[in-house]
Amino acid sequence: MGNCSQGCKDYFSRQKNTNIRLTLPVVCFVWQIAMIILFGVFIRYDEESDTHWVETKAHDNITSDIENDFYFRYPSFQDVHVMIFVGFGFLMTFLKRYSFGAVGFNFLIASFGLQWALLMQGWFHSLDPQTGKIFIGVESLINADFCVAGCLIAYGAVLGKVSPVQLLVMTLFGVTLFAVEEYIILNLLHARDAGGSMVIHTFGGYYGLAISRVLYRPNLHQSKRMQGSVYHSDTFAMIGTLFLWMFWPSFNSAITDHGDGQHRAVINTYLCLASTVLTTVAISSLSQKTGKLDMVHIQNSTLAGGVALGTAAEFMISPYGALIVGFFCGIISTMGYIFISPFLEKTLKIQDTCGIHNLHAMPGVIGGIVGAITAAAASESVYGKQGLINTFDFTGDFKDRTVLTQGGYQAAGMCVSIVFGVVGGAIVGSILKLPIWGDPADENCFDDEVYWELPDEEEEHQESIPPILEYNNHMIHKQQDLSESNFSVEHCES
Amino acid sequence: MGNCSQGCKDYFSRQKNTNIRLTLPVVCFVWQIAMIILFGVFIRYDEESDTHWVETKAHDNITSDIENDFYFRYPSFQDVHVMIFVGFGFLMTFLKRYSFGAVGFNFLIASFGLQWALLMQGWFHSLDPQTGKIFIGVESLINADFCVAGCLIAYGAVLGKVSPVQLLVMTLFGVTLFAVEEYIILNLLHARDAGGSMVIHTFGGYYGLAISRVLYRPNLHQSKRMQGSVYHSDTFAMIGTLFLWMFWPSFNSAITDHGDGQHRAVINTYLCLASTVLTTVAISSLSQKTGKLDMVHIQNSTLAGGVALGTAAEFMISPYGALIVGFFCGIISTMGYIFISPFLEKTLKIQDTCGIHNLHAMPGVIGGIVGAITAAAASESVYGKQGLINTFDFTGDFKDRTVLTQGGYQAAGMCVSIVFGVVGGAIVGSILKLPIWGDPADENCFDDEVYWELPDEEEEHQESIPPILEYNNHMIHKQQDLSESNFSVEHCES
Amino acid sequence: MGNCSQGCKDYFSRQKNTNIRLTLPVVCFVWQIAMIILFGVFIRYDEESDTHWVETKAHDNITSDIENDFYFRYPSFQDVHVMIFVGFGFLMTFLKRYSFGAVGFNFLIASFGLQWALLMQGWFHSLDPQTGKIFIGVESLINADFCVAGCLIAYGAVLGKVSPVQLLVMTLFGVTLFAVEEYIILNLLHARDAGGSMVIHTFGGYYGLAISRVLYRPNLHQSKRMQGSVYHSDTFAMIGTLFLWMFWPSFNSAITDHGDGQHRAVINTYLCLASTVLTTVAISSLSQKTGKLDMVHIQNSTLAGGVALGTAAEFMISPYGALIVGFFCGIISTMGYIFISPFLEKTLKIQDTCGIHNLHAMPGVIGGIVGAITAAAASESVYGKQGLINTFDFTGDFKDRTVLTQGGYQAAGMCVSIVFGVVGGAIVGSILKLPIWGDPADENCFDDEVYWELPDEEEEHQESIPPILEYNNHMIHKQQDLSESNFSVEHCES
Repeated sequence: MGNCSQGCKDYFSRQKNTNIRLTLPVVCFVWQIAMIILFGVFIRYDEESDTHWVETKAHDNITSDIENDFYFRYPSFQDVHVMIFVGFGFLMTFLKRYSFGAVGFNFLIASFGLQWALLMQGWFHSLDPQTGKIFIGVESLINADFCVAGCLIAYGAVLGKVSPVQLLVMTLFGVTLFAVEEYIILNLLHARDAGGSMVIHTFGGYYGLAISRVLYRPNLHQSKRMQGSVYHSDTFAMIGTLFLWMFWPSFNSAITDHGDGQHRAVINTYLCLASTVLTTVAISSLSQKTGKLDMVHIQNSTLAGGVALGTAAEFMISPYGALIVGFFCGIISTMGYIFISPFLEKTLKIQDTCGIHNLHAMPGVIGGIVGAITAAAASESVYGKQGLINTFDFTGDFKDRTVLTQGGYQAAGMCVSIVFGVVGGAIVGSILKLPIWGDPADENCFDDEVYWELPDEEEEHQESIPPILEYNNHMIHKQQDLSESNFSVEHCES
Repeated sequence: MGNCSQGCKDYFSRQKNTNIRLTLPVVCFVWQIAMIILFGVFIRYDEESDTHWVETKAHDNITSDIENDFYFRYPSFQDVHVMIFVGFGFLMTFLKRYSFGAVGFNFLIASFGLQWALLMQGWFHSLDPQTGKIFIGVESLINADFCVAGCLIAYGAVLGKVSPVQLLVMTLFGVTLFAVEEYIILNLLHARDAGGSMVIHTFGGYYGLAISRVLYRPNLHQSKRMQGSVYHSDTFAMIGTLFLWMFWPSFNSAITDHGDGQHRAVINTYLCLASTVLTTVAISSLSQKTGKLDMVHIQNSTLAGGVALGTAAEFMISPYGALIVGFFCGIISTMGYIFISPFLEKTLKIQDTCGIHNLHAMPGVIGGIVGAITAAAASESVYGKQGLINTFDFTGDFKDRTVLTQGGYQAAGMCVSIVFGVVGGAIVGSILKLPIWGDPADENCFDDEVYWELPDEEEEHQESIPPILEYNNHMIHKQQDLSESNFSVEHCES
Repeated sequence: MGNCSQGCKDYFSRQKNTNIRLTLPVVCFVWQIAMIILFGVFIRYDEESDTHWVETKAHDNITSDIENDFYFRYPSFQDVHVMIFVGFGFLMTFLKRYSFGAVGFNFLIASFGLQWALLMQGWFHSLDPQTGKIFIGVESLINADFCVAGCLIAYGAVLGKVSPVQLLVMTLFGVTLFAVEEYIILNLLHARDAGGSMVIHTFGGYYGLAISRVLYRPNLHQSKRMQGSVYHSDTFAMIGTLFLWMFWPSFNSAITDHGDGQHRAVINTYLCLASTVLTTVAISSLSQKTGKLDMVHIQNSTLAGGVALGTAAEFMISPYGALIVGFFCGIISTMGYIFISPFLEKTLKIQDTCGIHNLHAMPGVIGGIVGAITAAAASESVYGKQGLINTFDFTGDFKDRTVLTQGGYQAAGMCVSIVFGVVGGAIVGSILKLPIWGDPADENCFDDEVYWELPDEEEEHQESIPPILEYNNHMIHKQQDLSESNFSVEHCES
């Protein structure tokens, strides 16, 4: 890219064309039709969601319908679903004029991504060798939502600077990369990562940051007037924050083992997040001269604890262990917003709109490390013989693995997710740099005006402020008359 | 109505009186007291919510409390509950000054409607012939919420144009009609309609449209200034959209068969809705010169897939089948907003505030047709022998019914719901036309001012814009002084 | 306090210092570290969330993981969690400029409170005498959330008038008092109070009112301009209202008996709340000259039914009984806002920002009375022999208790909660009166400006109103030029 000739440069910096009337519908239609065809070829109901389940039940001596995995996982699934669409969507509405893009594009790419994720994850994890089919159930839906989460995290880094077509491309490649790194980490390395500290957050974070680096806009200050929040947009963002925060225990427990596995993951995440809130508030208050709190910290850093417990939530990290993780994550994440984000932007030229480095990438890495350490430190005295086997799934090919080895593989998984994020993001970023995707000009970033039909606000303000403004207008006109009359009077008089 | 004499005309077009201080409290009190009396006579706990359940358990050899239907249905119930109150309520907040009415009246009529629904549905579906009592449990609550949904859909057509008293009357008759058509469709015709494509959406849609037709306001343009949205009201509406969208899998699976029935309905609805989002975005973008998206489409048409899978969600429609339904619903519903709504208003004189024709009526009819076709095409090879019997409930009087016959009855059910909607709506509309209900004048439609004490906004703006405005005012006054002084100076000098 | 000398008076009325840069971080850090240490010493996973559960299962002949208490309680827990953070948080956003404080401080104190509650409730209710440990599971998390609810109710009374440090202190003592009164009421008196009419709402209500009384501000009118709502802040508050209203059935059923106990509590609460909405609307409409509705009533009084059924929700109060309770609560609570709140402020000098007296204290007392009466009236013919024992837990030391005695103890419990609230609140209020907590001056109450970095609204308005305002500015400047030119012209001419 550095040796790009003048002609090439001109090509890249020509007047931006944000008309997506051709590309967006074409991408949506073609990709959706492709999904239908691929689903037709590959995807089927699994045995618990098929009408033949009545036979399966009889065969397996299952006495009650409540044994269907649906009843173990559906409440968690719905919570995760809310996190994906309302949580991520509203968290990004904090910008004064990008709420439509935040919620709307989040909606679009998640809806595409979950379909593609069912296919990609199916091919890698659950393709039946005999029938060549992928059998899906409620756990597949949760995994698809998880996969999408990685891409939505990446969206946070480029919020307001890309077109919806670019976001769809990002999601297509993001989901693909996700499925591969997930396969390597969970299946080949046999690392545990139920809540996705590594697989989801670290990968998603670095994927987004790398893309943002490649798409660096030196003149982004031209849209500085749009980069802040307003009072109500910050309140909207708190809806996202709270739904993420409240349902994070479901996120980290959604696909853990039935019974004590889900139970423990919930308790750990609940405690960890509570601890994070206090230290976030403390650091936020410390960072201002008069101890005032900053909404950016409250909206984001309070969530870092959930990210950092993604790997270890199902382990016997013990309640106070969860509190300790939350304690440090609140501090580190808030410090990230204060010190690291400006540094990243100035020095590394990474413009990170939502600060995903502080909310996902860094806490994700912490989570990976915490997971590796707690796995390596696991012992039969704490877990029980069978408990240890269940928790780390030391069965089949891995039945002889020691906890120390497991710790090593956890750490290796961490590295895989970083590499996939950075390298994948760099490549995808280069693709997104092509001047065909309809991205906005530097001075139009963070503005819904570019991709959305906006309501006629002027009319609103005429509605809601008439008394004062009309008074002003009235005064002005009266005065103008007065001045004019003065003028004429003078002329007359002189 | 056409032969109405001049005196009658005058009576109808006299100055509107929107004072509801007498009618609203009277209706609320009298109806609520009636509910208490009727509940006292008829409604009792069913055996799973009664303290005698401990005996029932022993008698039926139920070993665990988890077998209580509560644990199968409660998570779905809560999701449906959120859809009714937050989903429908916030979806309608898009108007710039009707958010209080949207959320508040939705709250009121749903709260009344669910009580009346428990009685009406109880009398028709579950009146115990021996005791003369209606026994209710969690499934009854879900059904009551469903019944209310039909009336809230109808509210969407008349949003902003009617008084809360009219809405309560609409709900009283709506629930009554609902219970009857539901009895005919589900019990007499033995059609399947777990998510209510026909029973809820088609009926509710046409009921509302017919009422809106009868209440046609030729001079509605007089309140045109209030008909648009503003930036934040559109963001509020997205809260409604997303909660409806996310929880629609629970809606369509809430009362399906335990086990695989609920499981499959969730998967189908989840996929169908994802597909709808992509085609909605595609058509919305295509409809604008520069490919910009329209919030009206994103808020509404993205939901059409859930409506259209209401009947077939529990069938073995297969994952790609669900995607196909969603694909076409997104297209048709968005096209409806672009082409059909203006046509309905101009030609058929149906003023449909929220476009329920595109979101509920049309997709509901599609859902009925999809249900009829997929039922007729069901086969033992796909469903399994017992699976087919379970899914279509071919037991008792209906044990010899073939799938083809079932398809026919499904189609017949479709027609019943349309007839009940149109005819019922026309009759109820005529009742609502009586000039006693306190409806707003044409120039006051879509304005919360009529029925709500509004906060003093002027003060707010003095709060939030003082720097600029005060500056302006200041400048004006200074100038005025200047001008005046000029004037005097002139006089002096001349 | 009355005999306070002049010097003391001066000390108390000196210029307010709202700088909390030292106190807030110190309190957050020290308390969080204390939590970690205490958790390390005392808190462990219970047997259902421990990896040893696999052994427990084998030992107790539990055949399925679904028997884990997690699956009975987790959906209810998540609903309660939403009520605590989104429900209470957004309910208080109604003030025009205190949304950050409402949601943000609610978030902070709930996060601290739930940790402290796990310890306090653990010490009083479930400290294992042999190991000296507290074993926690999902029910402990629900109880911790309940305990926090009491403090959040109290926050409603002092909303906008205290600093976050004061709120943390209030929560520390509030949780402590809560655990003690809960121990007395539930364990010593053996009263039933699953939804906490007495334990949570009555205590929390009077605790907050007593604190507010002690912190009485005679010159609060100086911040009158900030005390109202604006259109969108009222809409935000409805998010809180609806999530509280919808999930209240989960609140009242979250810790009731498995099976019919949870099932019945849901039905009762659902019906009771529906009834409350209608009478709230009726009284609200009656209270205004033209029958307009008041948002304050709709936001708050509609919830009174849930509070009042907190004790009796699990009893066989029968569906119509639930409706009757809701009927009267809507009336009484709305009347409270109209008549009692102004009286409390003028005569008793209790400034109750959110009207918690009408929403929690009064309905809580009603709930206690309803509980006592329905307990005393319980009979074996209605409950069944075993049902009666199960419902009132007439086992162990209490196996000979009669329902009449139970009714008496319920009433005694009621009194205990009031005494703890009033006396505890008075003492804590006195502590909060110390001039070291950074509370705002009378003229800065209800203003986020004091404790939050606010977005630069001026810029927003320049963004959103430019056409008109710039026009104004333009006109003014043009005119000024004109005037000046006039002036000079005159001079020239004269």
